[in-house]
Amino acid sequence: MRLDQVAKLLSCKLEGDGSVEIHGVATLEQARAGDLSFLTNPKYFNEARRTKAAAIIADFNSGQFNLPILRNTNPYLVFAKAIELFYSPPQQIASIHPTAWVEDSAKLGKAVSIGAYSYIGEHVILEDRVDVKAHCTIYQDAVVGSQTIIHSGAIIRERVKIGKRCIIQNNAVIGSDGFGYAKQEDGSWYKILQAGTVIIHDDVEIGAGTTLDRATIGETRIDQGAKLDNLVQIGHGSSIGRDSLICAQVGLAGSTKVGNEVILAGQVGSAGHLKIGDRVIATGQTGIPGDVEPGKVISGSPAIDNKSWLKSIAVFSKLPDIYKALRDLEKRVNLIEEMNQVILEQNKTTLSI
Amino acid sequence: MRLDQVAKLLSCKLEGDGSVEIHGVATLEQARAGDLSFLTNPKYFNEARRTKAAAIIADFNSGQFNLPILRNTNPYLVFAKAIELFYSPPQQIASIHPTAWVEDSAKLGKAVSIGAYSYIGEHVILEDRVDVKAHCTIYQDAVVGSQTIIHSGAIIRERVKIGKRCIIQNNAVIGSDGFGYAKQEDGSWYKILQAGTVIIHDDVEIGAGTTLDRATIGETRIDQGAKLDNLVQIGHGSSIGRDSLICAQVGLAGSTKVGNEVILAGQVGSAGHLKIGDRVIATGQTGIPGDVEPGKVISGSPAIDNKSWLKSIAVFSKLPDIYKALRDLEKRVNLIEEMNQVILEQNKTTLSI
Amino acid sequence: MRLDQVAKLLSCKLEGDGSVEIHGVATLEQARAGDLSFLTNPKYFNEARRTKAAAIIADFNSGQFNLPILRNTNPYLVFAKAIELFYSPPQQIASIHPTAWVEDSAKLGKAVSIGAYSYIGEHVILEDRVDVKAHCTIYQDAVVGSQTIIHSGAIIRERVKIGKRCIIQNNAVIGSDGFGYAKQEDGSWYKILQAGTVIIHDDVEIGAGTTLDRATIGETRIDQGAKLDNLVQIGHGSSIGRDSLICAQVGLAGSTKVGNEVILAGQVGSAGHLKIGDRVIATGQTGIPGDVEPGKVISGSPAIDNKSWLKSIAVFSKLPDIYKALRDLEKRVNLIEEMNQVILEQNKTTLSI
Repeated sequence: MRLDQVAKLLSCKLEGDGSVEIHGVATLEQARAGDLSFLTNPKYFNEARRTKAAAIIADFNSGQFNLPILRNTNPYLVFAKAIELFYSPPQQIASIHPTAWVEDSAKLGKAVSIGAYSYIGEHVILEDRVDVKAHCTIYQDAVVGSQTIIHSGAIIRERVKIGKRCIIQNNAVIGSDGFGYAKQEDGSWYKILQAGTVIIHDDVEIGAGTTLDRATIGETRIDQGAKLDNLVQIGHGSSIGRDSLICAQVGLAGSTKVGNEVILAGQVGSAGHLKIGDRVIATGQTGIPGDVEPGKVISGSPAIDNKSWLKSIAVFSKLPDIYKALRDLEKRVNLIEEMNQVILEQNKTTLSI
Repeated sequence: MRLDQVAKLLSCKLEGDGSVEIHGVATLEQARAGDLSFLTNPKYFNEARRTKAAAIIADFNSGQFNLPILRNTNPYLVFAKAIELFYSPPQQIASIHPTAWVEDSAKLGKAVSIGAYSYIGEHVILEDRVDVKAHCTIYQDAVVGSQTIIHSGAIIRERVKIGKRCIIQNNAVIGSDGFGYAKQEDGSWYKILQAGTVIIHDDVEIGAGTTLDRATIGETRIDQGAKLDNLVQIGHGSSIGRDSLICAQVGLAGSTKVGNEVILAGQVGSAGHLKIGDRVIATGQTGIPGDVEPGKVISGSPAIDNKSWLKSIAVFSKLPDIYKALRDLEKRVNLIEEMNQVILEQNKTTLSI
Repeated sequence: MRLDQVAKLLSCKLEGDGSVEIHGVATLEQARAGDLSFLTNPKYFNEARRTKAAAIIADFNSGQFNLPILRNTNPYLVFAKAIELFYSPPQQIASIHPTAWVEDSAKLGKAVSIGAYSYIGEHVILEDRVDVKAHCTIYQDAVVGSQTIIHSGAIIRERVKIGKRCIIQNNAVIGSDGFGYAKQEDGSWYKILQAGTVIIHDDVEIGAGTTLDRATIGETRIDQGAKLDNLVQIGHGSSIGRDSLICAQVGLAGSTKVGNEVILAGQVGSAGHLKIGDRVIATGQTGIPGDVEPGKVISGSPAIDNKSWLKSIAVFSKLPDIYKALRDLEKRVNLIEEMNQVILEQNKTTLSI
């Protein structure tokens, strides 16, 4: 496809020669002749100067390069759409594999796909164009909204509800029992029946190996457009607001209420029974012990304001020097105090002369 | 069911009108007319004052509310039992699904259930009333004790032994190879055959996606009544004592010996080849580098005494101020020392007059 | 087997009586008469003095014990090989289970095994002696190299390439979609098609429940001989060098380039878009925010040089004392300054006399 055609399809302003043929999309480093590349992270500016790409996608502020540029105010979104021009995901023809097992009481919408060996339990509802890959298990009374994709090995437990256009990645578990026990007199733990469920709204993605526990009573809830990465743990009764990003290996203890458009970076942990306000950002490995006000950027374990944390962390590696400097200073002050005693004695003498 | 009946069934002292009809159990916030709620965490005292519940479960010290109260010394346990009055988990009729595959040499007790597509390997023993859901894999020579439930996607590896009344949540892996390699002269790693196994005693629960590695030689062991949450990693040769709670995403390196009634909160990590004494509590994200004495409460990475940690953490955010104050003080002491030199000179003059 | 035979087979120098019969291998603590044990970690020196083993494997520097010793410069490797003398892993007879489903377009080499219910997708290539256990899913166009073992529940996604002699442990996911979204004007996230793949070279082991995301474009890559433990998360476009060890629950954000012979201990996290040099060692729970030079040992979150970190951590628990000492010192300096004003006034008087 000619670059000027690509520019048009991607709604970009073209700078440079539009006649070059584009065959694919590649990173700045890996791009070869005929590849379209992209500069969406200023960190890679030098790579952009050296790239062998035929053209790059960039925003309007990222300067000039010795190759044609497709300009757009949102180059990352343009990059996303460029990939779709040159790559087609495996196409699924709607069909139910002969080895799939669908209980008679389950209800299937139009054009539903079910892969090899998948098991669809009693009274399950799969709406139109749901695509269940091989080796999935959907327990009784679960509901899956239209166009949702469930990848191999994913487990949907009893009564869980999943919205439309969701993607559940491989081996994710939706609706496992929450971790709830009451202590008995003999020190042993009495399992609390996890009688609630999990509700996932539309356009949510759940990462590979991620686990969402069902609520003890009521629901664990993921709101529209939220995205959860791999190996995330969502405790029972927690909720995640609209368009929030929960990165890999984050763990939320029970009853954590996460607001809208929140970003929790990798390995963040939350103590549970607390609220994280809208648009909060927590950097990687942050440990959240209590409520967080909307809009805050937090870091550290336990979490503090990100700017304070950056300042404290800068001093942290100087702690041994600080300790030594303090001890030195104490010695000098000791000496000064002794000397001042001498001076005062001298002055007493002098003044008394 | 009338509240006074509920009180009787739950062994509670009833305060207030026992004639109100109860239809279910709900959190303080979500409760509506006819719901029984509960106050088990003093943090929710204000919610208890505002709840629309018909009645609440509370202990004897939590004051008065404008609604009937069911009093008990262990309100959390009463709450657990209240749920059972109003909610029934899906009932399993003992049956072996036509698509399940059971090797001829496997031995099945009475009233065993095996779900769709589950695979029971050679010489496996499933005792009475074991309930294997759909899509489980049990490797050869494994033994599963009576009444144990194995949820879909769980894997039980060769020779693993699981006790009675255990619950294995979805996609848990029991008995994967330990992470053991010996370095060879050329820098490559020689895999050490993981010849040991995993032994799980009675009444243990293993969370979704949790992995327990088999020992190199000997056994990885989980003692009676211990509960492991989701996405926990137990290294080869580790052991966990009776009634211990291991929260989500905890990782124990190999040969970690965890005592009885220990609580490791979410994302705690342990360095391996060490002992964590009975009744130790480690708060979230604690990193344990060495042995911990029984009864200690620890925090931080690396772990220190929790009280010391709380004090140090309180100072941590003041580090930039401390650094600045120290530098300021050094300057002032420099000035004092210079001034004292002047004074000493003056005094020398004065005294020599 | 007689100990002198064992010594010969394991290329060890025998010290002591070679006529004793050896029946198995056991840890120092658990060994009984007839067991061969090993001292590979100096931490267990006292256990070695007390062991009931018939003989131990040790290096040439670890002193004398009251029992026969098999000496070798690499006792850990000898230990690994000793296990193989006395223990045989379950033998797999090459066969395709009657319930396995292999698409017609898939190509199988010689002596391939496929377990119960496993699904082999369109155009998949399984080379000679590949051993796929029960309940695996291999998506279309994947390639698995000869002698590789894929354990139950593992998922190999479309177009993934796995080398020879690899081991994929249970429920691992190779090639799930990367976590990539572009923000749209209304605040919602646009999913970026993950058009790349995952390439795993020869002799790699992937732990249970570990997830490797496919690259957005290009590849996520694991080089020859690298070993990944359980519940590890490898973000899209990351790469791991030759013979590196990635311990349990490590998380690498996208585009993390890990060098050769690197060791990342448990729960380490990396921020992504960075390079970790050859032979770097990161201790447990380290958080890596930026590039790391080859050969560095790092610790802490954010990571600093390990030696600096050890010194700072030692001071950390003294922070409250430091804070108090600083405040005390400030008061003393205030007093000194006041006193010096008095002295200066006195001297002014004296000198003006």
